[in-house]
Amino acid sequence: MDVMLICGSKSDLDIVARAEETLNEFGVSYASEVCSAHRNPEQLDTVLRTTKAKVIIAVAGLSAALPGVCASKTIKPVIGVPVNVQLSGLDALLSMMQMPPGIPVATVGIDNAKNAALLAISILALNDKALERKLHDYRKAMKKK
Amino acid sequence: MDVMLICGSKSDLDIVARAEETLNEFGVSYASEVCSAHRNPEQLDTVLRTTKAKVIIAVAGLSAALPGVCASKTIKPVIGVPVNVQLSGLDALLSMMQMPPGIPVATVGIDNAKNAALLAISILALNDKALERKLHDYRKAMKKK
Amino acid sequence: MDVMLICGSKSDLDIVARAEETLNEFGVSYASEVCSAHRNPEQLDTVLRTTKAKVIIAVAGLSAALPGVCASKTIKPVIGVPVNVQLSGLDALLSMMQMPPGIPVATVGIDNAKNAALLAISILALNDKALERKLHDYRKAMKKK
Amino acid sequence: MDVMLICGSKSDLDIVARAEETLNEFGVSYASEVCSAHRNPEQLDTVLRTTKAKVIIAVAGLSAALPGVCASKTIKPVIGVPVNVQLSGLDALLSMMQMPPGIPVATVGIDNAKNAALLAISILALNDKALERKLHDYRKAMKKK
Amino acid sequence: MDVMLICGSKSDLDIVARAEETLNEFGVSYASEVCSAHRNPEQLDTVLRTTKAKVIIAVAGLSAALPGVCASKTIKPVIGVPVNVQLSGLDALLSMMQMPPGIPVATVGIDNAKNAALLAISILALNDKALERKLHDYRKAMKKK
Amino acid sequence: MDVMLICGSKSDLDIVARAEETLNEFGVSYASEVCSAHRNPEQLDTVLRTTKAKVIIAVAGLSAALPGVCASKTIKPVIGVPVNVQLSGLDALLSMMQMPPGIPVATVGIDNAKNAALLAISILALNDKALERKLHDYRKAMKKK
Amino acid sequence: MDVMLICGSKSDLDIVARAEETLNEFGVSYASEVCSAHRNPEQLDTVLRTTKAKVIIAVAGLSAALPGVCASKTIKPVIGVPVNVQLSGLDALLSMMQMPPGIPVATVGIDNAKNAALLAISILALNDKALERKLHDYRKAMKKK
Amino acid sequence: MDVMLICGSKSDLDIVARAEETLNEFGVSYASEVCSAHRNPEQLDTVLRTTKAKVIIAVAGLSAALPGVCASKTIKPVIGVPVNVQLSGLDALLSMMQMPPGIPVATVGIDNAKNAALLAISILALNDKALERKLHDYRKAMKKK
Repeated sequence: MDVMLICGSKSDLDIVARAEETLNEFGVSYASEVCSAHRNPEQLDTVLRTTKAKVIIAVAGLSAALPGVCASKTIKPVIGVPVNVQLSGLDALLSMMQMPPGIPVATVGIDNAKNAALLAISILALNDKALERKLHDYRKAMKKK
Repeated sequence: MDVMLICGSKSDLDIVARAEETLNEFGVSYASEVCSAHRNPEQLDTVLRTTKAKVIIAVAGLSAALPGVCASKTIKPVIGVPVNVQLSGLDALLSMMQMPPGIPVATVGIDNAKNAALLAISILALNDKALERKLHDYRKAMKKK
Repeated sequence: MDVMLICGSKSDLDIVARAEETLNEFGVSYASEVCSAHRNPEQLDTVLRTTKAKVIIAVAGLSAALPGVCASKTIKPVIGVPVNVQLSGLDALLSMMQMPPGIPVATVGIDNAKNAALLAISILALNDKALERKLHDYRKAMKKK
Repeated sequence: MDVMLICGSKSDLDIVARAEETLNEFGVSYASEVCSAHRNPEQLDTVLRTTKAKVIIAVAGLSAALPGVCASKTIKPVIGVPVNVQLSGLDALLSMMQMPPGIPVATVGIDNAKNAALLAISILALNDKALERKLHDYRKAMKKK
Repeated sequence: MDVMLICGSKSDLDIVARAEETLNEFGVSYASEVCSAHRNPEQLDTVLRTTKAKVIIAVAGLSAALPGVCASKTIKPVIGVPVNVQLSGLDALLSMMQMPPGIPVATVGIDNAKNAALLAISILALNDKALERKLHDYRKAMKKK
Repeated sequence: MDVMLICGSKSDLDIVARAEETLNEFGVSYASEVCSAHRNPEQLDTVLRTTKAKVIIAVAGLSAALPGVCASKTIKPVIGVPVNVQLSGLDALLSMMQMPPGIPVATVGIDNAKNAALLAISILALNDKALERKLHDYRKAMKKK
Repeated sequence: MDVMLICGSKSDLDIVARAEETLNEFGVSYASEVCSAHRNPEQLDTVLRTTKAKVIIAVAGLSAALPGVCASKTIKPVIGVPVNVQLSGLDALLSMMQMPPGIPVATVGIDNAKNAALLAISILALNDKALERKLHDYRKAMKKK
Repeated sequence: MDVMLICGSKSDLDIVARAEETLNEFGVSYASEVCSAHRNPEQLDTVLRTTKAKVIIAVAGLSAALPGVCASKTIKPVIGVPVNVQLSGLDALLSMMQMPPGIPVATVGIDNAKNAALLAISILALNDKALERKLHDYRKAMKKK
């Protein structure tokens, strides 16, 4: 498995689905879990300790501590997707982007799980020639739309 | 010990000192720890598991996950003090106040650790007649300033 | 009675109901009043002077002076719930959180009266073993959702 | 006495002085009080009950409940001056401007106590021909600067 | 006529109506005009030069220059009502509140034309005993709601 | 004369100077006036009626009605420069950019009078081959910095 | 052709249509292209290199790099229209207005493509007497609405 | 060479230096270029076409189009560092984070180039066991601070 998708609440699953759709399109393997950093930190610990994924995508709204907590427990790249639940998503955006020096989260745009998937793919493509080619093709196809 | 003071970074210690000053003034016992939710989650777990304090005060800037992580690991009241490091403190404020339903953080004003101490005292005073009297006296003295 | 719920306007009652639901779930006694700090300050004075509640929860939108006025007239812990009426609730949030040094309000998230109730319960549980146990059970049940 | 100037904290007195300077320039009588709505509500009640002023100017920062509390206790026009203490004054601005329907506060710009004085003068000038003439002269002089 | 109501666009008329309703309730005479500071400055000049009103209420959204332009052309008190057209009304709010020293606008809450009317009434009541009594009665009735 | 520079207050003259420096560099003729839309609307009318300039640059802070008032009184292109006086310049920015449909203001970045000058030059260059060449040279030189 | 209209995405075409309607009303010739600065930079290069238009109008939401990229590749005046896709359009607004010194974008209000068209017309009218007359007539007609 | 560091202006070089320091600490090879997306797009094209780096770090303030333009011209992971030049860095933050679906930028905190370097290292460590070990050691050392 290449990508671990984690979201903080069941209500975020429609945003997660946008990432899954893009990962499917590129044939990248993934697993998805609903797992709150605040309500079930132990489960999150277990998921992060046992996953074989190379990249983590964490989707969360409001206080959105999930990506930061993930990043504090793994040295793998963690991509954060802020979800618009209140305040147009500004709370989630700042909660995940303004990480203290030492523990980075790679934040993408509000509700933009598709870009999280593409960022994960660009990371995986650094060591996967087939995936690199697919990404080049994807960009070319995009120009024609 | 009645109050556990935790801050996310050494640079927050001057804000913590404002709470300590007020707790000293009221004769409330406390301990203070620098302990980052992001950089050292295991140490934070230990502190929260072993402390006998009744109330936690967590001071943090930027992503400010500290109070929320504390609140997710204890059922004691957790008071959060957002610190102005960037964006006038708006990032820390939203990170700690916008907790998901289920895990509350009692947020006070930006850099306002004095109010965090007074809030902790008002909670402890519910079962401490002497402290309740001191709080009444404090309010009276405040009127004369 | 353990908790006094006050809101500034009848239109806030659906937010208040979320706190009531959680207090009912825990078997905590409470009373609720609609009472504007701006339109009827005398009534508010009476409510605060006569209540036997240990914790006050104040729910208000817009200028949201209610929690601060409560806090200025009692030494009991006051929890503020900012309501989203305009500006995504940012006006209410800042009005209640940015209290001057000396008079704290424990602010929770926008419209998040459930967390206000849980914060009140965590305060009451400091001296109520049965309630403490219920809160532990609640957290455990939450992990399974 | 025509204008009552009230500020929430001694640290606001330099802002108050800007209003006093303009009132002096126009020969309008006034009195000034430091009186916190949160820390000393009883004193504020007394000031508002006993003043003979026709217009109230209330200067406050942070939660800035002062103008609203004044407006809830008098039917005289209340002018609010938001003070920049934190968040560029946005907290004070919203706290005093977003009053609920029924109790208005006439808010002027951040730290702009001079405009509060001029607004008070324009109100008093409605029934004071000499003051009206002075205001016309003031405007003319302003054009030459 | 006591109050001149001016709005910048026909689309603001429903907000203006809230002020008219309150002025009617108090028996205060008024006239209403749609008159854009930007699209028809000459008409605005004429309205302001010829009106006998004692107080101006200016309602506008977006850049919301209307109240400021009114205030620059009359020494009568000008009350501004920011209308939420975009950005939750924050653009209109800042455009009318942040007037330069010398020319004040008395700004009330977003879309809150009712408060503009009540502020105008409180100004007129300074020299109208009957209106003063009505305002006292209005406040009393408000307490019973 | 090609460009008319107007600012709302003497304190804006250092920002105006940045535009003058660039206009001098390109040999574009200009005149500069301090002229407040709020404090001296009549002078502004005269300036706008008599100027032979093809493009207007209006520099203002706070409520920043100046560019909009200019635009309402001329059909020439009006460029607005928001000045950071308070709120990081956000008040001025929104006041001049959010003009109602019908009367546009071409807004450039906060305090960025240099870009206002370059925008004016790009407009004048549409009918001035020598100026067009200078602008091409300027861009080339910029690449080497 | 006088005006080149470019938008970053097909979903912006309804905003573009508002500019086209106004350009049609004035009989100004234009061409429109959907062309993303981010997804198809090569196509954008071609459009900008080959167009004979005197003025560019670029319409974009979110990161809204389009007008800035256009401005970096042409010395013609570039007008930017920020589109409200998320965050009330504040992201697009700041992305296009806060250009670095050297490369200006003339930004108009959020979603306000009509004003972009009118700004383009005011620029073209500097050297087109018939268009200048139409613009005068348009302004006069506007006063009667 | 593993990492390409690009900044939009010489004034950003002190921020870039924070990333260089961390890359040096880990022994990761890099090259640095000052290269504006707006002022010199051709140079940027050349840099991106010829670099052998696996990860791009783009540092920029204000409109901050640089990371997005990089991302549109390479399929390698692009990390953006928003620089606080104006508006507390909010303009740069939104300009680089709110990329349209299809072209992601991995945004880190304001001025936080150290985290950009650590994110780049975590990506490179996916295929570099020695680097992975260093990152584990770095995290351990961080816990002791």
